[in-house]
Amino acid sequence: MSDPVRREGGAIDRLTALLSKLPGLGKKSAGRILYHILEGDPAYAKLLAVELARLHEAIRRCSLCGGFTETDPCPICADPDRDHGLICVVERPQDLRIIEESREFNGIFHVLGGLIAPLDGIGPDKLKIGELLNRVRRDGARELILAFNPTIEGDTTALYLQKILKDLGVEISRLASGLPVGGDLEYADKLTLSRSFRGRIKL
Amino acid sequence: MSDPVRREGGAIDRLTALLSKLPGLGKKSAGRILYHILEGDPAYAKLLAVELARLHEAIRRCSLCGGFTETDPCPICADPDRDHGLICVVERPQDLRIIEESREFNGIFHVLGGLIAPLDGIGPDKLKIGELLNRVRRDGARELILAFNPTIEGDTTALYLQKILKDLGVEISRLASGLPVGGDLEYADKLTLSRSFRGRIKL
Repeated sequence: MSDPVRREGGAIDRLTALLSKLPGLGKKSAGRILYHILEGDPAYAKLLAVELARLHEAIRRCSLCGGFTETDPCPICADPDRDHGLICVVERPQDLRIIEESREFNGIFHVLGGLIAPLDGIGPDKLKIGELLNRVRRDGARELILAFNPTIEGDTTALYLQKILKDLGVEISRLASGLPVGGDLEYADKLTLSRSFRGRIKL
Repeated sequence: MSDPVRREGGAIDRLTALLSKLPGLGKKSAGRILYHILEGDPAYAKLLAVELARLHEAIRRCSLCGGFTETDPCPICADPDRDHGLICVVERPQDLRIIEESREFNGIFHVLGGLIAPLDGIGPDKLKIGELLNRVRRDGARELILAFNPTIEGDTTALYLQKILKDLGVEISRLASGLPVGGDLEYADKLTLSRSFRGRIKL
């Protein structure tokens, strides 16, 4: 028998291969998505193609905070109504977006571009830490909120920043870690439980 | 506060909205995929865009079997080495592909384009059943294998085809239903267990 992959033609295989490189998609889910597109309105595929083709031209990094934006500086950094003395430090641009969507924060952001991970060869020099120091020194931020994931890398990076920033007179805090709202004690892992004890809140 | 969605710019939101319409993707996974593309090589996004833009032009339906193909008739229907007396009837084009990849079958295919589902308003007239009858009558197929999912709709459609084809002297079978290979009796549902008893194989 000839190669089954060749029977349907290259376009399907090329697109399946491309889609299966996306995070969270394997070969099966990429195939399901592809057939959904194929059986659907061609206008949808065209629109998706147009948006993808111009994505990297439309979106750049903000030269101040490092977040994704269509204008530089980004609307957050350029907004005089935000508190520019309060900087939320995040690992990645998508963390910035998640925090913005929660509408919980009215300061500005700083994207580190990663977390310190010695085992992966990521030292402080690979991150935008110099830029953060400049922003604290130059713009006189009075408070930093470190919004890293509660992981070893997040802890390491928070400790490192605390150390190098301690002489600059800036207040530093980190997002609380503990039981998720709506969660169940029974399903909490030991570390989360331990953190929620250490970070318990007086009533 | 202004709309957080507007801060990053419309391109991100438009693409997130488009991606989250795909099967299996919600808003969160669409966002994860989008940021992965944004942080990745722009060449990848361009390539994906090119393939999507020409997908519907490159791929059409085979006028014989109804499967997706770049040439008409498709390479399977045009292949003289395949057994044209043996037709595997499937619900959707992707089922055809899955069976081809298993390399288990050397006949030809017929895509019904759905299964009979009265509650969803899908009667036999909505499916390519007339075309199947023509293929059986005209091309003299000697055997049909119904490769439908073991669901109520699959059962209904199989019964219907059995009824209307019974005078044409064509042998009809259906894929075996039972315990999946590597599965565990303990986790089998009652219906699957019942089917695997009824379809038990003499050793």
